[in-house]
Amino acid sequence: MGRMKITVLSGGVGGARFLRGLRDAVTADDEVTAVVNVGDDMWLTGLRITPDLDSIMYTLAGENDEERGWGRVGESERVSAELRAYGVGWPWFTLGDLDIGTHLTRTHLLREGLPLSEATARITSRWPLGVRLIPATDDEVETHVITDGGPMHFQEWWTRHRASIPALSFEYRGVAASTPAPGVLDAIAEADVVIVAPSNPVVSIGPILAIPGIREALASTPARVVGISPIIAGAVVRGMADACLAAIGVSTSADAVAVHYGARSRGGVLDGWLVDESDAAAAAAIEAAGIRAQVVPLWMRDAESSAALGRDALAAAR
Amino acid sequence: MGRMKITVLSGGVGGARFLRGLRDAVTADDEVTAVVNVGDDMWLTGLRITPDLDSIMYTLAGENDEERGWGRVGESERVSAELRAYGVGWPWFTLGDLDIGTHLTRTHLLREGLPLSEATARITSRWPLGVRLIPATDDEVETHVITDGGPMHFQEWWTRHRASIPALSFEYRGVAASTPAPGVLDAIAEADVVIVAPSNPVVSIGPILAIPGIREALASTPARVVGISPIIAGAVVRGMADACLAAIGVSTSADAVAVHYGARSRGGVLDGWLVDESDAAAAAAIEAAGIRAQVVPLWMRDAESSAALGRDALAAAR
Repeated sequence: MGRMKITVLSGGVGGARFLRGLRDAVTADDEVTAVVNVGDDMWLTGLRITPDLDSIMYTLAGENDEERGWGRVGESERVSAELRAYGVGWPWFTLGDLDIGTHLTRTHLLREGLPLSEATARITSRWPLGVRLIPATDDEVETHVITDGGPMHFQEWWTRHRASIPALSFEYRGVAASTPAPGVLDAIAEADVVIVAPSNPVVSIGPILAIPGIREALASTPARVVGISPIIAGAVVRGMADACLAAIGVSTSADAVAVHYGARSRGGVLDGWLVDESDAAAAAAIEAAGIRAQVVPLWMRDAESSAALGRDALAAAR
Repeated sequence: MGRMKITVLSGGVGGARFLRGLRDAVTADDEVTAVVNVGDDMWLTGLRITPDLDSIMYTLAGENDEERGWGRVGESERVSAELRAYGVGWPWFTLGDLDIGTHLTRTHLLREGLPLSEATARITSRWPLGVRLIPATDDEVETHVITDGGPMHFQEWWTRHRASIPALSFEYRGVAASTPAPGVLDAIAEADVVIVAPSNPVVSIGPILAIPGIREALASTPARVVGISPIIAGAVVRGMADACLAAIGVSTSADAVAVHYGARSRGGVLDGWLVDESDAAAAAAIEAAGIRAQVVPLWMRDAESSAALGRDALAAAR
């Protein structure tokens, strides 16, 4: 087959691993575009932080800390110690020095008037990532968590409170007035394959789908839209996505998440859904919802299994 | 004698050393206020940098790098290496990581709407400095150097070109519309003693004197105004002040600088002027200009000689 255009809707760490595997699975002729969640983004001590874009960039650049699971390898925290000594910033959200280099660059470019998508293009040009990263929107859309004690930024709920405070609901602040970043709608419309990465459905993929125009683009693209379950054997692969799913009344199961996204033929977003071999029993419910279920190994435990998942996702989408 | 209010007009490194000696020379009852030059300030990679305020703060806090002569002791440059890798910033102006902690804090406070004087008060409260630091103005006044090739920021001329490009003149951009920061005029009007530190007359003290209202306050204060020569034996103690003096037609001598400042009784700013023992011969010319000359050792080679100079300056101003 010839050159292929592949567009992936993606969050941070899980999406980053999937994208790395996918990149290893495609040929140099193929074109992979990641439409990346910005809901985790925030201003902190005057810096614009974009955790999902950075997780993906560091992972694709081979600069991520595999052991810790996030951030840059060989990181240090000298600047953050200074910020704490001056009494500014969030003491529970420590920024690494190398990471601050990225944030300073981004903030500088934004302050110069560049939209986030252009700042991202410039920043990612430092490394041959093999994947084009586009923020889902250039507008500031930030996920807030509504709790009994009031709303808080998603990062505060997730990182400071470890999702231990019950979430009543999630609010994607600013999303109604937002528009997709330049290139996003084209990347979906002109794709041969659209993939929904195994990212958190509520706070990673949810904010992308809530941007006006993106669901419509997914509905009308000639590409097949295939998702990968972030749930394996009734448990989240990483993070605390179950707390997010519970808040929106979706149970932590491979089929419940598929039903939550919905079949494209019935107004949802999915044509197909990849579930792990341990969830083979869920296939019937998924098919009943109008979504083609495919049972494949979902664990990305190394480069080979990650690339294999990339190949499986492409095969399912053809 | 009782409690004394001492106000010092000051630039960076030379001023910092003098202020440290003065602090050691006064009693805990005395109140030392430094009115600090902002002409070296600049925006760099989205950060507001205030070199003179920081040099003084680090020196008084005992956090300065004595050996290198500027910046923080134990400094590293990991963030700047990232900025270079992303292709932003000035490659010839490297910011240390600890220093970036200060700049991030300041920039954050400024972006939150605090004037520089309040941001400075908050930042300096981290250490018991023994000296109150006030920027000469809250407005952005930046020194630019006019050269044959056009104007450039003072930092570019000084740090990148090592003052090797002939300066035709200096421009304190924004100074005409600037006003003294809150506390500056009072610090001069209510002082028992006003001291002009041995800082660069053109780019450290010059921008302070050019702020509308400051010369008038110096003219009318009941305090005596005493300056300390930054020139010893016809040479600058540090830096490349001679290149600055040449541009404004002042020779590099203790008496020429005194004459440049001028006698307060004749519309200038000085009542007295301290020159080094090696410049005793300059005393006659200084006195002829209407300024009381005092010959004392000016070299600040250690804590004791610095404190002695502080005592000499206070004695001369009484």
